[in-house]
Amino acid sequence: MQIIDGKATAAEIKKEIAAEVEQIVAQGGKRPHLAAILVGHDGGSETYVKNKVLACEACGFKSSLIRFEDNITEEELLAKVRELNEDDDVDGFIVQLPLPKHIAEQKVIEAIDYRKDVDGFHPINVGRMSIGLPCYISATPNGILTLLERYGIETQGKKCVILGRSNIVGKPMASLMMQKRYPGDATVTVCHSHSPNLKEECQQADIIIAAIGSPHFVTADMVKEGAVVIDVGTTRVPDASRKSGFRLCGDVKFDEVAPKCSFISPVPGGVGPMTICSLMKNTLSAGKKEFYK
Amino acid sequence: MQIIDGKATAAEIKKEIAAEVEQIVAQGGKRPHLAAILVGHDGGSETYVKNKVLACEACGFKSSLIRFEDNITEEELLAKVRELNEDDDVDGFIVQLPLPKHIAEQKVIEAIDYRKDVDGFHPINVGRMSIGLPCYISATPNGILTLLERYGIETQGKKCVILGRSNIVGKPMASLMMQKRYPGDATVTVCHSHSPNLKEECQQADIIIAAIGSPHFVTADMVKEGAVVIDVGTTRVPDASRKSGFRLCGDVKFDEVAPKCSFISPVPGGVGPMTICSLMKNTLSAGKKEFYK
Repeated sequence: MQIIDGKATAAEIKKEIAAEVEQIVAQGGKRPHLAAILVGHDGGSETYVKNKVLACEACGFKSSLIRFEDNITEEELLAKVRELNEDDDVDGFIVQLPLPKHIAEQKVIEAIDYRKDVDGFHPINVGRMSIGLPCYISATPNGILTLLERYGIETQGKKCVILGRSNIVGKPMASLMMQKRYPGDATVTVCHSHSPNLKEECQQADIIIAAIGSPHFVTADMVKEGAVVIDVGTTRVPDASRKSGFRLCGDVKFDEVAPKCSFISPVPGGVGPMTICSLMKNTLSAGKKEFYK
Repeated sequence: MQIIDGKATAAEIKKEIAAEVEQIVAQGGKRPHLAAILVGHDGGSETYVKNKVLACEACGFKSSLIRFEDNITEEELLAKVRELNEDDDVDGFIVQLPLPKHIAEQKVIEAIDYRKDVDGFHPINVGRMSIGLPCYISATPNGILTLLERYGIETQGKKCVILGRSNIVGKPMASLMMQKRYPGDATVTVCHSHSPNLKEECQQADIIIAAIGSPHFVTADMVKEGAVVIDVGTTRVPDASRKSGFRLCGDVKFDEVAPKCSFISPVPGGVGPMTICSLMKNTLSAGKKEFYK
């Protein structure tokens, strides 16, 4: 059994990106520039954005943080999005979600120029990913693909069961795992809250990608000997022993499942650290105009 | 066992559309207008476009057929696409595929204003469909959904196995069958040429959607008692007894599979007649500006 170390992989990739950026700059190229819009003072969002800025530094990117108070209007936010769309110095940008309730998130997402949509949430990027065209792939699916790749995990012809059908993990993961390329080419099954046969599907799976947000949902009796298990769950459960008062809990009962696996990603330290790393990969691609002119 | 009669369903829907169009026009509204661009003289394309024009007449739509010779340049075709994008009288339009080899199909598809993309091939429509937002759904998946609906076939919690992962059938069908709504909410498995366990997956399926283009691929031993089988295959096989010299052959060995099914769609007369009907539904939606302003 091998533990998939997302933290180490992410660190490795950030180093590779930093090296490439230095090379680009040395050759007279432009340093990639990521901008982030943060609305309000949600604790989680503050942390995420702070970590994204730190990751930019580690990668040698320029970064800009644009802050607004909770009471910004939708129109003001859209105006800023349009401004960043037009700003030639900004290669890619994100609007940190969630947004205050009076702002329509989907409208903001669709206002972002898809060529700068490094979060990969714009319908054009979602659609291009589904068709198999080059595009920005969103953070979590991108991170999982990278882990499968870096650990040399075979996927062709394997039965891959995805638990959860969210727009940000389950659905894109299904699209990607069925593509005619590595990592992919798997027989893909998507199970969810209305799947009566979920347990049996898992028992047959060579690869399980758990993204339902239900702590310890996947138990040893659901996993076959030698399976690969990727845990995407990150539910906060109260933990008085922690300074923060909580700890992150995955969808997989790690202690009992791990001994049966060929590979397993833990929580924390598995998929989590890869997400910001995916954003950095997309920002590098944006800087290089890899997908769009 | 009930045979799903796509021809009768399509005729019924076209009548419903025609009635709605007359009502719209009677209330002073605009008659929906579909334009079709046909390049060259491919026999199949000629027939498809002719049938689309006839269907427009049956539905009370205005239709325009724009023809170009094979030697049209990509730029000339793109110019016509831009012209139709701007033409306020045209509610929706299609460019009949395939195009001559010197023209990049994907570039043409992406040049179409997604608000007029009644074929549903533009990445924005593909992406919005995947996310579950209102949009044009392409002809074949749209037709299959309608058949499931009209025949009141239960899908929630059912195991739906899709054979084939094409961009025009397999992948969108998977997205749609896993959505949280009817028809959908199924446990979805996508099998393809690299699925060693395809037969076993089929044997467990409550619903099989066969779209691999391999005549008589699905045999009785692959289908469980009471299953629903939707046959999307339309391979031309030589048949000297026909005037055309060929007949359409489905992916399912109908004679032996049908007795085991609760519902089965035949070829021809199942999914096929529904595809043009889907285009008519999308054109009506375009005329009503149902999805986009």
